[in-house]
Amino acid sequence: MRTLHPEPLTAAAFAPFGDVIELAGARQMPINAGTTIRFHDLAQVDVLAEGGRTLINLFRAQPRDVPVRLSLMERHPLGSQAFLPLVDAPYYVVVAEDDHGRPGALRAFVTNGWQGVNYAKNVWHHPLLALGAVRDFIVVDRGGAGVNLEEHLLDEAVCIAT
Amino acid sequence: MRTLHPEPLTAAAFAPFGDVIELAGARQMPINAGTTIRFHDLAQVDVLAEGGRTLINLFRAQPRDVPVRLSLMERHPLGSQAFLPLVDAPYYVVVAEDDHGRPGALRAFVTNGWQGVNYAKNVWHHPLLALGAVRDFIVVDRGGAGVNLEEHLLDEAVCIAT
Repeated sequence: MRTLHPEPLTAAAFAPFGDVIELAGARQMPINAGTTIRFHDLAQVDVLAEGGRTLINLFRAQPRDVPVRLSLMERHPLGSQAFLPLVDAPYYVVVAEDDHGRPGALRAFVTNGWQGVNYAKNVWHHPLLALGAVRDFIVVDRGGAGVNLEEHLLDEAVCIAT
Repeated sequence: MRTLHPEPLTAAAFAPFGDVIELAGARQMPINAGTTIRFHDLAQVDVLAEGGRTLINLFRAQPRDVPVRLSLMERHPLGSQAFLPLVDAPYYVVVAEDDHGRPGALRAFVTNGWQGVNYAKNVWHHPLLALGAVRDFIVVDRGGAGVNLEEHLLDEAVCIAT
């Protein structure tokens, strides 16, 4: 069994895979006569390939057993996929660069405070890894015709160090 | 001073103005080997007019004093705007049908449980009306060129009955 040691999730470290959705560093605009702050344009939504459209969904995830064991990676060739947690609780994010059509070296991240992620189109990532309790996430992704899911079973057992 | 009495927010009552975003009645799909439920396609995102694109933002709203006094209505001629609360706490939603280019009779709604709204393109609505504490909302709306805001000051003072 191989063990991954999760890194803190930062925009710089995650840049090859997509956007970290967070308030730190975001453009802020006071609106509504000063009663509201707009944290503006937090992720690059990229869903229009092959006639796609933007979907808003809610994912309700069961917590994983720890240490978390990884089984497969997936990617969405036609669209980005953003996850925005409803609660401020840590969860894991596992991604990989592509290596000749399959995931290369896995990288694990752990969130710190209220952070979401937006996987760029066609980026390998593990399905949602909630921790501790049932967690709800707003998910913004692509709807429409076309094959938008590719899965890859991992060859060896991998877990995330707690 | 005129007083509005808020109605419960239901999909049927709100239909002329857009979508109620809620889990009751949503299409549910088990995904990720049964570890997650996907509540699918909760709102009609309509942001592509005049070269628009989908934005994901966070709005941080100060709570309103009660009884809430209304001052102006606004609408977005080029795109829908969805609000999804991070917390399960009631807030007000005020909308109006168009009456020759200005808001007609105002209708006030109050949320019940975790509910969001998606204002359809060009629907008159009041800016965000949070209650009780600072509240965060995920907002999915339109970015891009073009004039996407129209405001209308109310002619008479209106408040919402508590």
